[in-house]
Amino acid sequence: MVLFRSLFRLAPITGVVAEGGGEAGAKPASGGPVDAALIEDLVAANRILVDHGVLDSWGHVSVRHPKNPERYLLSRSLAPELVCADDIMEFDLDSNPVDQRGRTIYLERYIHGEIFRARPEVNAVVHSHSPSVIPFSISSVPMQPVYNVTGFLAPGVPIFEFRDVGGMTDMMVRDPALGRALAKSLADKPVVLMRGHGHVVVAPNLPLVAYRAIYTEMNARMQLQAISLGGSVTYLDPEEGRKIEMVIKDTVVRPWELWKKKALAKK
Amino acid sequence: MVLFRSLFRLAPITGVVAEGGGEAGAKPASGGPVDAALIEDLVAANRILVDHGVLDSWGHVSVRHPKNPERYLLSRSLAPELVCADDIMEFDLDSNPVDQRGRTIYLERYIHGEIFRARPEVNAVVHSHSPSVIPFSISSVPMQPVYNVTGFLAPGVPIFEFRDVGGMTDMMVRDPALGRALAKSLADKPVVLMRGHGHVVVAPNLPLVAYRAIYTEMNARMQLQAISLGGSVTYLDPEEGRKIEMVIKDTVVRPWELWKKKALAKK
Amino acid sequence: MVLFRSLFRLAPITGVVAEGGGEAGAKPASGGPVDAALIEDLVAANRILVDHGVLDSWGHVSVRHPKNPERYLLSRSLAPELVCADDIMEFDLDSNPVDQRGRTIYLERYIHGEIFRARPEVNAVVHSHSPSVIPFSISSVPMQPVYNVTGFLAPGVPIFEFRDVGGMTDMMVRDPALGRALAKSLADKPVVLMRGHGHVVVAPNLPLVAYRAIYTEMNARMQLQAISLGGSVTYLDPEEGRKIEMVIKDTVVRPWELWKKKALAKK
Amino acid sequence: MVLFRSLFRLAPITGVVAEGGGEAGAKPASGGPVDAALIEDLVAANRILVDHGVLDSWGHVSVRHPKNPERYLLSRSLAPELVCADDIMEFDLDSNPVDQRGRTIYLERYIHGEIFRARPEVNAVVHSHSPSVIPFSISSVPMQPVYNVTGFLAPGVPIFEFRDVGGMTDMMVRDPALGRALAKSLADKPVVLMRGHGHVVVAPNLPLVAYRAIYTEMNARMQLQAISLGGSVTYLDPEEGRKIEMVIKDTVVRPWELWKKKALAKK
Repeated sequence: MVLFRSLFRLAPITGVVAEGGGEAGAKPASGGPVDAALIEDLVAANRILVDHGVLDSWGHVSVRHPKNPERYLLSRSLAPELVCADDIMEFDLDSNPVDQRGRTIYLERYIHGEIFRARPEVNAVVHSHSPSVIPFSISSVPMQPVYNVTGFLAPGVPIFEFRDVGGMTDMMVRDPALGRALAKSLADKPVVLMRGHGHVVVAPNLPLVAYRAIYTEMNARMQLQAISLGGSVTYLDPEEGRKIEMVIKDTVVRPWELWKKKALAKK
Repeated sequence: MVLFRSLFRLAPITGVVAEGGGEAGAKPASGGPVDAALIEDLVAANRILVDHGVLDSWGHVSVRHPKNPERYLLSRSLAPELVCADDIMEFDLDSNPVDQRGRTIYLERYIHGEIFRARPEVNAVVHSHSPSVIPFSISSVPMQPVYNVTGFLAPGVPIFEFRDVGGMTDMMVRDPALGRALAKSLADKPVVLMRGHGHVVVAPNLPLVAYRAIYTEMNARMQLQAISLGGSVTYLDPEEGRKIEMVIKDTVVRPWELWKKKALAKK
Repeated sequence: MVLFRSLFRLAPITGVVAEGGGEAGAKPASGGPVDAALIEDLVAANRILVDHGVLDSWGHVSVRHPKNPERYLLSRSLAPELVCADDIMEFDLDSNPVDQRGRTIYLERYIHGEIFRARPEVNAVVHSHSPSVIPFSISSVPMQPVYNVTGFLAPGVPIFEFRDVGGMTDMMVRDPALGRALAKSLADKPVVLMRGHGHVVVAPNLPLVAYRAIYTEMNARMQLQAISLGGSVTYLDPEEGRKIEMVIKDTVVRPWELWKKKALAKK
Repeated sequence: MVLFRSLFRLAPITGVVAEGGGEAGAKPASGGPVDAALIEDLVAANRILVDHGVLDSWGHVSVRHPKNPERYLLSRSLAPELVCADDIMEFDLDSNPVDQRGRTIYLERYIHGEIFRARPEVNAVVHSHSPSVIPFSISSVPMQPVYNVTGFLAPGVPIFEFRDVGGMTDMMVRDPALGRALAKSLADKPVVLMRGHGHVVVAPNLPLVAYRAIYTEMNARMQLQAISLGGSVTYLDPEEGRKIEMVIKDTVVRPWELWKKKALAKK
């Protein structure tokens, strides 16, 4: 069973209210206690994405705070496979932790904060090094949707180029400016590739973001195979993509419940 | 041990007889109780195809009712990995459930109903998103049999194009007309690809349909590899395919018993 | 623990001596009881090759009888993963079973009998559908050794074409004549591919034949990858291959002991 | 729990001091007892690299002696998956064992000794047959870094050609001269490919060498995929590589702790 008491329910941190967002050192107020079920889903999403080979030791998953849209929840710096409810921390949209208590935090948390700021309808964000997706991030061949399960890719898959923003860098989203540049590349799409680094997937909720991350990886594998066959390839039409999305939103619960059950069964 | 009592043996639903096939809302009569061994085989087929990477959370497997060829058996809407005997429901060829009792049913069940109607000698149907097969569904390069275990592909592998029937759709076989169009594309073959969606495999029985689904996936992987080598490729001759099929029908029990044993050993 | 008593040690079948080789129906004499350790190695080889993805449900492994070179040992018709010591049967080089007792036997056992006849220095034979090797069996691109572990491929890898012998057949080695034709294609090499079917690997002993079968599969994967890179490729020189073989013969015990330990640990 | 007492702590071999390096038969003095934690890390590194498919039955991992830079630690000749603390032996830089006690030692240990001699800042060495890396060792297409996790490849990946040193050999690093030639090819880089054999990875410590070995394999897979897409490919710029390396050195502990925990959890 996943435990989360100390941080979110038994001890909501009401004594560390800060004056809102701001630079490092700021102590933003908590958005309030969070339902245990949501924390469990966030933990499950971390492990599900490891189970499916999307996350290695460096990716992360976040969810927007359900009571305060200016806050989001994200694990302390930890391999996703190890994340438990007690590891979940709260951040403001400047990505300052509400109550750090000495814990190490992800360097690239700005990915989450800036996307939550730019995209009000997005409530869940995954950043990964999904292995079959990386090759598309460095190729001139664009990722395109190969089958109905990836209709969400039909609006196009932009690529974020660090060099356009900062020249030759360490390619880490290590400050708010890079986070905003990434959010700008993402624009209104569900997926943005990061050249030579990985990608980001967003969705209205955790089940949908997990599904999109898993099937972006699948799409990458299948598109490469289709191209390797050497003939012409028929991708989804944007209209097909839109119509399919309507169906998926209602049926994603079927795989989600299965994935979650299996992910949480592991100790 | 697989349990199936409540639905099929101890409580055959004799009180909900309807006036035969028809539209949604119709309550067709049951074909009668079904032997536990067949239900177990159907459950096993679901799990076997998950074990072999053919089915993900969205595919399904059906078998024709052994006593009434106008009925077929299919799980309620559920990830195939989770299917147990109690989840098996009965449908008429219009794909109306005999006794829904509030259970959610697969949207695309018409695939099964219309193929069972069009192909009297077919008694088992698999619909899947088999990952290595999808690329062939969107490529101009036809799938061809690479080795004797896939002799069943020698008559050719047609591709069903949703656009030819309904223009830009959500690409779901969501009504009888689409089911009939798919069955027409399948014609007298054992496999039909669905462009940008998946494929359907049919056979006279469950062991054979499982074997064909597994080895269609294998054939796809191997054909891609053979093409990628860059030389000329020798596929099976149709006559070789026909002769091989005679052998396979008798020996498929060997892998089936192994697969079943392993699939049902999992709780 | 592997049991083998009933067949080979406690009850050597001395009462069913036949007059030597011959056609089906003949009852050849046994070569005598066989050491339990050899039977255990044969069982282990079956399972090791399943563990490494070389054997599916249809392949088989044999070893020459240590006391009578005119006899060999092979499982009854069974998926290799399930083979136990009690399943091991004895055959003469015409592939007649010494004591069938109603057991089903492999249709393609002639592969073993005819190769043991043609190659006195060979004491172990594997027939498989090794998945990455099949594409080479149907391609005009020859398999070549990519690294020192596959030096045994340096003398060349011939392809056996069923059509050259029997025209359009079911491509099964179902009689002695096809077995002899296959042995002729193999000639003095360690590996022969069977077009559109699989391949055969031979060696002086079981550890070496398992190693060769596993690394033929590995070589196929790596050669395809090297070709797919699109540049020129440097294969082993035949002289390198010969020199490497001298080293491998002495060090194959290291992987064999590990593989065997793991294979037999499974119940 | 990993045990290591007999060799390194309870019984430091003080009675077999030799006169320093030299030819086979020399008995060099021990560098002294080694901390149990380092031995545990060395055992873990062996198993981690098996878990990630980098090492098969023939590779090895070494670490420099922490008290005497003229000594290094390496398992006796054993499949890496089976290595325990008791199997760790000590060698001088001529690769003579400090206290052989009849144990078989790796033929290619000179890889380690000569690299430790040539590269004072290197404290950990991996030699492997990493399967996706081999194809790059025989291709004219150079390995290049595809993503930030492999920034360490940015300085270039040389290929060691046995033929340049010894003509047609068995391609084993079986003497100090071949070890020195390999170290010369490696030069100041972290990775050198060995044509048709495998590769060597070096680093300042065990966590970093494990990480580099794992991600060299990942890079090989991804680069092949990127090339197979058929478009142009953007690799990391050397300046990006250098900047990324600064980040990785501090964060490699995150995957290392996870890998180690899982590797040592297996009995």
